[in-house]
Amino acid sequence: MLNRIHHLGYAVEDLRVASRFYRERFGADPGEPEAVEEQGIIAVMFPVGESRIELLQPTRPDSPIGKFLAKRGEGFHHTAFEVEDLESALAELDKSGVELIDQSPRVGAGGTKMAFVHPKAAFGVLTELVELPHS
Amino acid sequence: MLNRIHHLGYAVEDLRVASRFYRERFGADPGEPEAVEEQGIIAVMFPVGESRIELLQPTRPDSPIGKFLAKRGEGFHHTAFEVEDLESALAELDKSGVELIDQSPRVGAGGTKMAFVHPKAAFGVLTELVELPHS
Repeated sequence: MLNRIHHLGYAVEDLRVASRFYRERFGADPGEPEAVEEQGIIAVMFPVGESRIELLQPTRPDSPIGKFLAKRGEGFHHTAFEVEDLESALAELDKSGVELIDQSPRVGAGGTKMAFVHPKAAFGVLTELVELPHS
Repeated sequence: MLNRIHHLGYAVEDLRVASRFYRERFGADPGEPEAVEEQGIIAVMFPVGESRIELLQPTRPDSPIGKFLAKRGEGFHHTAFEVEDLESALAELDKSGVELIDQSPRVGAGGTKMAFVHPKAAFGVLTELVELPHS
């Protein structure tokens, strides 16, 4: 059911500093920053094999990433797995009593569908499920 | 320089419960538990695409994972990236002033070489670099 690690989300204070670190120290190729105002973030992504790292900087302190930084500091925020069929995955999980943040898919960047499983259900790891647009 | 996400390490209280969750809810295929007494852990791994998830349970409270659980609770512990040449990667990072936990490679499971970059240097993410054995 889990096809691959689609991306890892890392919460950072300063996107430019973190991007420079991954570019200069690890030869990574971070793209242009992209604002997702609804979520209160600016994100930069870079590929690692079949996965990506997403660096997430809050645009305001009361956004989810802003609150996360205030409470936990910089670091790992979530793991996102690619699945084939997000709606049936969520229905199955819900039926099994797995606590979900999103009962039904939300539309994410690039027309993907995404939903979060509650970290309480997944042993402390905020876990995102992503379904890619079908061409 | 970063070929792929080799694995993610998740710290858990009970390997059997966490393995069952990933098997039953996500169709994952966790292998047999493996003890690494030197590190004070029992680990179970399962593949996700080209990467793996490693579930890590401490064998004693004063081990690194035991202390992590006591302080932070269950959750994400580290990201491991595969690199081609670990010794030159470490030398480069050290020369650039990046704080390392391991100045030189340690031998990990299955004859891999591995070393940790300090989480302070990598924006709060404990970052492992892995070089696979050359056949």
